[in-house]
Order: sequence, then structure tokens, then C-alpha cells
Amino acid sequence: MNTSISQTAELQAFFKQASGFGNDVGSSRLKSIILRILQDSAKVIEDLNITDDEFWKAVDYLNRMGSNQEAGLLIAGLGLEHFLDLLQDARDQQAGLTGGTPRTIEGPLYVAGAPLSHGEARMDDGSDPGAAMFLQGRVLDAQGQPVAGAIVDLWHANTMGTYSYFDSSQSAFNLRRRIVTDSEGRYRARSIVPSGYGCPPTGTTQEVLDQLGRHGNRPAHIHFFISAPGYRHLTTQINLAGDKYLWDDFAFATRDGLVAEVRFNNDLEMAKRLQVEPGFAEIEFDFQLQHAHAPQAEKPSQRPRAQLSA
Amino acid sequence: MNTSISQTAELQAFFKQASGFGNDVGSSRLKSIILRILQDSAKVIEDLNITDDEFWKAVDYLNRMGSNQEAGLLIAGLGLEHFLDLLQDARDQQAGLTGGTPRTIEGPLYVAGAPLSHGEARMDDGSDPGAAMFLQGRVLDAQGQPVAGAIVDLWHANTMGTYSYFDSSQSAFNLRRRIVTDSEGRYRARSIVPSGYGCPPTGTTQEVLDQLGRHGNRPAHIHFFISAPGYRHLTTQINLAGDKYLWDDFAFATRDGLVAEVRFNNDLEMAKRLQVEPGFAEIEFDFQLQHAHAPQAEKPSQRPRAQLSA
Repeated sequence: MNTSISQTAELQAFFKQASGFGNDVGSSRLKSIILRILQDSAKVIEDLNITDDEFWKAVDYLNRMGSNQEAGLLIAGLGLEHFLDLLQDARDQQAGLTGGTPRTIEGPLYVAGAPLSHGEARMDDGSDPGAAMFLQGRVLDAQGQPVAGAIVDLWHANTMGTYSYFDSSQSAFNLRRRIVTDSEGRYRARSIVPSGYGCPPTGTTQEVLDQLGRHGNRPAHIHFFISAPGYRHLTTQINLAGDKYLWDDFAFATRDGLVAEVRFNNDLEMAKRLQVEPGFAEIEFDFQLQHAHAPQAEKPSQRPRAQLSA
Repeated sequence: MNTSISQTAELQAFFKQASGFGNDVGSSRLKSIILRILQDSAKVIEDLNITDDEFWKAVDYLNRMGSNQEAGLLIAGLGLEHFLDLLQDARDQQAGLTGGTPRTIEGPLYVAGAPLSHGEARMDDGSDPGAAMFLQGRVLDAQGQPVAGAIVDLWHANTMGTYSYFDSSQSAFNLRRRIVTDSEGRYRARSIVPSGYGCPPTGTTQEVLDQLGRHGNRPAHIHFFISAPGYRHLTTQINLAGDKYLWDDFAFATRDGLVAEVRFNNDLEMAKRLQVEPGFAEIEFDFQLQHAHAPQAEKPSQRPRAQLSA
């Protein structure tokens, strides 16, 4: 029989005091959130009979996780970021906001301010030996009409599965670009085929996954922010068909409607004309946006993000 | 009406998958804890209608908190460390383990390995202009008999309210000592009167406290670990009477039975003999230990702690 004191009037009053309900300054919203977190935390400690050793191990974990800047990675790995997508889908359904390309998780590796170009861009700096990739497609509206002037802000890993900025061995903004769609709503990118991503093997996220008996791998994928005036911001990814982790993504980001077929092209003449090796990859992927139901819907969440000037 | 999906069979199955219930390796204990955290987190998000902006602000906060190594400070400030004491008191009550000096929170500022001496110690390195403090008392057993050979491991702040090791301007182990009690169970320490502690004003703990309308101050206090073979480890503090924050401690550590009277002594002859300025402080405080009900009760929790060699 577990000892339980958290539901007593005395403890509930204590949690209210600790949450600042005894004063009328500060944020009443945060007070309510903290109160709930205290109540729930106390109940978890009691219900699961959390020992002092377990509790302090968790507190130490939080310090180490934060020092590694891995909170966002753990949140993705535990499926909470995917849960937010499912919840937003359900909220949209209730509000009648349906249709268009599915959303999926942003992940913690976006960097704002990537170079902007019109219609097309080369994304790689030429140093990665990976197969060349020609990615193109259109941004469409709810009626299937092209959206000119949309910004396709895309980022992906190199063949080591790492991202520029977070991997300081890569050049600034390598494999990160913003491409403005042309009059036909089209974007074109030349890059290299990304590899899947694995959590840092000695990091705090992998430490938890190991104890859950789970791997920390993602299939090869490309991240997108798609935005245009009057349209609802879309955060999504395309995941490359054929990857062994396609439907076994540690971050649960792969979704129906977000799998991209990759055509490996061995046409020697075309390779010569494009100045790449044969076996280059071709991907075509269109995105469909919802109309913005409110001006703030045109923007991504205010999630704090890394920022560099191009 | 809030949208809710977390209680559906589909989402509950998803949380189980994310917690590693789909495999039989790893730690079944951690799987159960993570599953509960996921279920509760999802419910909080739904019940309080947590926005994406709020969610990602919290994730960013965790990274910043960890970078500052402030998880332990926040846990104290939100009263969760005090809650653990109250819960342990209740568990003890149920188990019939009562009596002796009350426990109170350890806080995050202990450093293992302080210099060990017998009977008495000078704790300060002479650089702090604070009033001299003569602290003494006895360690007693449940029957009030002296416990010889007990280790009184004590640490406190300087007159700026900061602790050696964490405040790198102080010498190693300044104001940290381990004193072995003499044949009469007595310990004697010469030090300087500590000042109250304030959370780092630009830190992440103070950031939350500000939004809760709360201050981040503690009364002047002295931390103790008291241990002896055959006795139950005691983690406690004495809080100095007369401090403005005595009963308004942001970490909720002050408890009945843990308030120490401070006698300021202006006897010129005694000051001369002791080689200190008049107005020195005298504190007498006895500790009473419970007998250990099991060998592991002789030790503190396995909370990860800073470690230095003396």
C-alpha cells in the first residue's frame, strides 16, 4: 500500500502557495500550469512509489539533457511532438480545417535565415560525396492551383546524417535553403541524397531510448516549412521510400501522404548534361496548402529556433 | 470545449509503443515511469489547452535550465523537494520510524569530500569579513545518549550568500567541513555567520519565480549530513532565528525544531581570548538520530553530487 498525502487539503494548499496563488502578481496562466504540474508530479511519485534515488537521478538527467541541448530531441523520441500533430489534426477536424498536405514534426534542427533564391537553388557546398539529388515540385492551393511566390524553406542532413550549424564541420547553411516558387508555383533544388539521422550515441536521448529497448534512428528525410501570404503555414517532412526505418522512425514523423519515391537515374547523357555522376536521384513532390483562417495562421509556432544571418 | 484524444485506445497504444512496451529489453521500471509521464503530459496539454508556443517555450526552458545546472534549484523552489520530505515523514509514520531531529531538504549545493577533522574544525579561510561564528552541539541517539564518532558533514554560504565550488571565487572547501564527534558526542566549528541565499538573479529558477510573483530568497542557514554506524542518516538544516526570511523560505526548508537561536556576544575579554572581534555569534544545536532499521538507512540518497578531493 503506497503512502499518499498529495490529495490532502494541507498539501493542495501547499502546492497552491508554491505556484504563487498566494499573491496577485506574475502570470496567472503560468501559475495554473505549475500548480497542475506539481499536483501531477506528486501523484506520480506516490502512485509509482518513486524512490529518492530515482527522483534525483531524474533531476540530474534534466541538467545533463539541457547541457546537451537535447530536450527537443527527447520530446521527439518520446512521441510527444507527434502527439502535438495528432492533437492539432483533431482540433482542425473539429474546426473544419481539413485538406492539404499533412503536417508532421519540425524536429529541433531548423536554423532561421537560410539563403533565399528564386525558383531554384543548389543546396550542397560540393564537399559531400553523396549521390546528387534533383528535387522539385509545386506548391498548390486548396483547389489545386499553383501558388506563386510561396517560400519553400527546406533543410536536410548530409550523408553522415548530420545537419549544418549543429555539425560545425559543415559550411554555414549547407543543405539549408529558402526557395521562392515561380509563376507556376514550382521550386527546384539540387542537393545530395540525405542519409537517415541517428541520435548522438553518447547523448541523453539515446541513454533513455536504450533503457526503453528502442533505437534512435530516423529514415532519410527532408524538412519543409512552406508559407505564402494568405495561406496557412505548413511544417512537414518528406521521407524517402525504401529506407529501412521508413515506418520505424524513432521520432514517429513518417505519415501517409509524406512518403516520396526516389528515382535513381543512370542515364549517362543526362548525367553528363547535368554534370553529375550517373545514379543521381530524382524526387518530385507537390505540397498543397490550406487557406489561412486568420493572419497568425500564416506563421509557424514561436518555438525558439537557432538563427544565423546568411 | 477542449479537444481530447489522449484517452483513445489508439493514443494509449501509441504511448505504450513510445515507452518501449513493444519490446522486452531495457528497464521495465523506466518504461512504466515514461508511460505514465506521457499519459499525464498529454492530458495536461489537452486539459489546459497548452498552445504550441507554450509547449516549445517549455522545451526551450528545459534546455536553458539544464545548461545552468538549475534543475535542483527549481525543484527546491517549487516545493517538490519539501514534498519529498513530507512524504518520507508520512512513510516513516506508517512504518513506526519516528523521533529525532526532523529532516529537511539537502538542496543542490553539497560537495562530497570536505576536509575531515576530529572534534572541531575551523571552516572559513579567513577571507570573509563576516562576524565570527562558534557553532557547537552534540549528536545524540534516540535515548538522548551521546554518539561518539558520528560524522557531522556541514556546509553553508558566505556573507554574499554563495557557496564554495559553485562560487569559484572562494577557496576549495571554504565553509565545508566534516567533523567527527568526540567521546561526548560533541562537535565544534568556528566559521563566519552565513547570509541568506538568493537565487541567481538572471537564472532560470528566478525567471519562473518572477512569473509566479515569488521571491527567491532563503533565510541564513547551515546544512548538515549526520551519519554514524548503526544510525539512520540525517539530512537537515538549521535556520537562524531573526532572519527576515525564516518563515518565508523560497525553498520551504524551515521546519519546527530546526530553528537555531543565535547569541551575539560582545564580551571583550572573551573576544580577545578567542582572537575575534566582539559581536561574534554563538550557536548551540544538538542533533538526535534514529537507529538504522536497515544498513542502507545509514547512507544518504544516491543523488548525484559534486565531488572534489580534499
